[in-house]
Amino acid sequence: MEKGSGTYNCMTDYQKLEDHFRSIAHLSHAESILGWDHSTIMPNGGQQDRSACLTELGVIKRKMITKPELLDWVDSAKQDASLNNWQKANVREIDRLLQTTHQITDDLAKAKSQACSKSEFAWRSLRAENNWKDFAPLLKEVIALSLEEAQQRASHTGRSPYDALIDLYEPGQTTTSIEKTFSQLRDFLQPFIPVVLEKQKSQSVIPLQGPFAVEHQKNLGLEIMQHIGFDFNHGRLDVSHHPFCGGVPTDVRITTRYDENDFQSSLMGVIHETGHASYEQGLPKDWITQPVGHARSTGMHESQSLLFEMQVSRSKAFFDFATPIMQKHLGNNTQPANMLSAENLYALSTRVEPGLIRVDADEVCYPMHIILRFEIEKALLAQEITVDDLPEIWHEKMQAYLGLSTLGNDKDGCMQDIHWSYGALGYFPTYTLGAMAAAQLFQSACKKHPNIPDEIAKGQFSTIRTWLAHNIWLQASLQNTDDLMIAATGKPLQASFFIEHLQTRYNGA
Amino acid sequence: MEKGSGTYNCMTDYQKLEDHFRSIAHLSHAESILGWDHSTIMPNGGQQDRSACLTELGVIKRKMITKPELLDWVDSAKQDASLNNWQKANVREIDRLLQTTHQITDDLAKAKSQACSKSEFAWRSLRAENNWKDFAPLLKEVIALSLEEAQQRASHTGRSPYDALIDLYEPGQTTTSIEKTFSQLRDFLQPFIPVVLEKQKSQSVIPLQGPFAVEHQKNLGLEIMQHIGFDFNHGRLDVSHHPFCGGVPTDVRITTRYDENDFQSSLMGVIHETGHASYEQGLPKDWITQPVGHARSTGMHESQSLLFEMQVSRSKAFFDFATPIMQKHLGNNTQPANMLSAENLYALSTRVEPGLIRVDADEVCYPMHIILRFEIEKALLAQEITVDDLPEIWHEKMQAYLGLSTLGNDKDGCMQDIHWSYGALGYFPTYTLGAMAAAQLFQSACKKHPNIPDEIAKGQFSTIRTWLAHNIWLQASLQNTDDLMIAATGKPLQASFFIEHLQTRYNGA
Repeated sequence: MEKGSGTYNCMTDYQKLEDHFRSIAHLSHAESILGWDHSTIMPNGGQQDRSACLTELGVIKRKMITKPELLDWVDSAKQDASLNNWQKANVREIDRLLQTTHQITDDLAKAKSQACSKSEFAWRSLRAENNWKDFAPLLKEVIALSLEEAQQRASHTGRSPYDALIDLYEPGQTTTSIEKTFSQLRDFLQPFIPVVLEKQKSQSVIPLQGPFAVEHQKNLGLEIMQHIGFDFNHGRLDVSHHPFCGGVPTDVRITTRYDENDFQSSLMGVIHETGHASYEQGLPKDWITQPVGHARSTGMHESQSLLFEMQVSRSKAFFDFATPIMQKHLGNNTQPANMLSAENLYALSTRVEPGLIRVDADEVCYPMHIILRFEIEKALLAQEITVDDLPEIWHEKMQAYLGLSTLGNDKDGCMQDIHWSYGALGYFPTYTLGAMAAAQLFQSACKKHPNIPDEIAKGQFSTIRTWLAHNIWLQASLQNTDDLMIAATGKPLQASFFIEHLQTRYNGA
Repeated sequence: MEKGSGTYNCMTDYQKLEDHFRSIAHLSHAESILGWDHSTIMPNGGQQDRSACLTELGVIKRKMITKPELLDWVDSAKQDASLNNWQKANVREIDRLLQTTHQITDDLAKAKSQACSKSEFAWRSLRAENNWKDFAPLLKEVIALSLEEAQQRASHTGRSPYDALIDLYEPGQTTTSIEKTFSQLRDFLQPFIPVVLEKQKSQSVIPLQGPFAVEHQKNLGLEIMQHIGFDFNHGRLDVSHHPFCGGVPTDVRITTRYDENDFQSSLMGVIHETGHASYEQGLPKDWITQPVGHARSTGMHESQSLLFEMQVSRSKAFFDFATPIMQKHLGNNTQPANMLSAENLYALSTRVEPGLIRVDADEVCYPMHIILRFEIEKALLAQEITVDDLPEIWHEKMQAYLGLSTLGNDKDGCMQDIHWSYGALGYFPTYTLGAMAAAQLFQSACKKHPNIPDEIAKGQFSTIRTWLAHNIWLQASLQNTDDLMIAATGKPLQASFFIEHLQTRYNGA
């Protein structure tokens, strides 16, 4: 951790920062891979010991980030006229990380970590049992600590408590900016959803009829990943209960889960995670130990997964290319005729149907799930509602936005997501910000390279990948999100591209 | 890492030690799982970054172990009359760990770690290429640093340099004690091997004729592990180039490799690693964060793997039980009649044939491979020979001990093992000490419970496991090896039981 003073004496304060953050990156590497292992292949009996290990690493890392000298080094580096733009951006990101870490006390960090660990672990079984009564007290503790966290962060920044949390995931966004965007989306979607539903009523689709063997689905996923550009020298595909993208940029671990009756759910999941992985694998390899070398934000990360899943792959062009591959892996002569046709698979993959579960939602209904959560989080952090109110409020909003009831069904209502159980308030909006950015980026790329859809239909992904690499991946955190979006698309992030995308795809507008 | 002074003020120095070593255990957990991942499933492109991560963890751990206050706490704990025997043993083990770590300088630890990492990585390809010329300079650096390490350790302890290294793996053993044992073994084996070879000439065996599908071999291995008592709630079986037992006691990761033409090699490997795993899984769960809770030594660990592989499983009783299971997984009607009979499988698994490769050696020839390495290590550390002499000396000793030549074949000669490439001198003797302990323990267990072989023939392993749990696993490091062996078998470790075992099994004596 510490270098000999001899070494340090020859270094500028900026160099000391780079050196120190290189060590921190190595610790983050350990946390990432151990976290992946925990969620994929660790036997159950390893649980308690692994948690203790991860807590220890977290304590060591926090101690390294809050090392008092770092604040002086940052102050000095900010005055250092010899730094180039990359180094300046690195200092900005380091400064942000230090501020974010210092905003909350060690005691709160520890208390929240323990409460979240307990609550998340309990959530796994209590959700399955639809047991709100026993989950509520655990969630209350997490929400109380999250509120304290938000207040501590707010007191350092002058932001509102909810803004302070949003900023952790999507720097630059605020409750106000998100409200503006989300109200635009809600105003569009509330009348749009019934129109699409009515229109799709008259379309006939052949439902998938399995079984589709897991081994065949896995091979299909691996082949599609290869085509899209996943780098298997720097990553793997495995299985987990909840699909995710983990690991480190030189070793990106994506996961999926298989349903023998529905191969599209796993396949689209694999493509989604391949989008996340492409961002990580596409970050400049020489930068990855420094904060400036990290992916820009949670929302920008989601933009890459949704660009590959929603923009590239839930398209007619993609099914023109991929259908023969799906037929090769999954087809047999007992299946209904045309079930595995490009037309039917496209229709299935763009079917709209309001449902209770966010992660199963189609791209039209999805934002309503997010808006609901955003409104509830805002009210929780403004202390206008309490944890006890959640089941009722959730039900009311589901009724209002998607016409569905969750009365007595908290499992599929306010208990369905893992996020609150581990205190990640302020995270949900980034899913829809990501969907918006995905549409905006894809439309800009296609405007510049109109042949992209034709290439996708031939299984060629190099033009879209090169454009993304240049505009997003290789930029890492050099710029803030607004500047990044303006440089790539000419405009800051906005909802209009996403709305246009939905109109084109779902209403032939 | 540090506790608030408030917490520490309420603790005795002994309690501070326990607390500190609990943190160190969590770091070791991270190192173990990341090391396992590195050797099993990590994609190649993750290599450099992972090495940096492991180096960082090593630096942090060394810093935690060399924290200056610890020496004072140990001194104080040694005077603490309130400690019980378990705590006293813990202090003894902590003291030993501190001494061992302090014996070498930070600079040497770092230099050796870097040289070993470079040499081990190069060894993988250079060995395959039989490229001694390019490997020798790398090995020279490692051996020079190992010599420096041995000298630094010797200067602190008054031991000879080689003794100082041996003590790292098998506390209590010395060059003299091992020489005495090994000369006894050599004197027995040199005339014994030709007798066994001559005897086996007249036995007809049906060689294995594959292919044996990997998937079937895997299922066979898993079923046998289950029978023997591997706890899958606290462990896994995976694949690696070199089989090993890694992970942590609550999550033991064993590996194997598959040869489609020879299922016995993988199966016996799986049983061997299950022996290691049984020790780790059998350690007292409440002790595992403390040094007294660790397995006793490298040799004792090997005794458990060899007890399960050589004593339990390369026996007629075992094949009586396991042959139907092997037939179920691997049998088909294209195979030669009786190939998968208990009699033939037992004969194959006890076939003696001098060969160049240690890891493929039968249990009769194996000690000669170890004696050869022991003699060479001793000469290297006494500076009687240099790295340049290795190919020639290796060849001469192979000629003398097993009648085989390695001239021009360093790949299967002095380059065959990974150990020297990463500077593990003093390790090899523990393999044969383990074989001796395995025979001694198994004979003692069978003397106490003469029904053990009959039980094995029925697939019942609880009596032998309970005996081992009581006498070895649950003892962890409470006693030194001699006391442990005396308590379990009535005698300190000696070669006579192993010699008797070989005579009984291979010469019907």
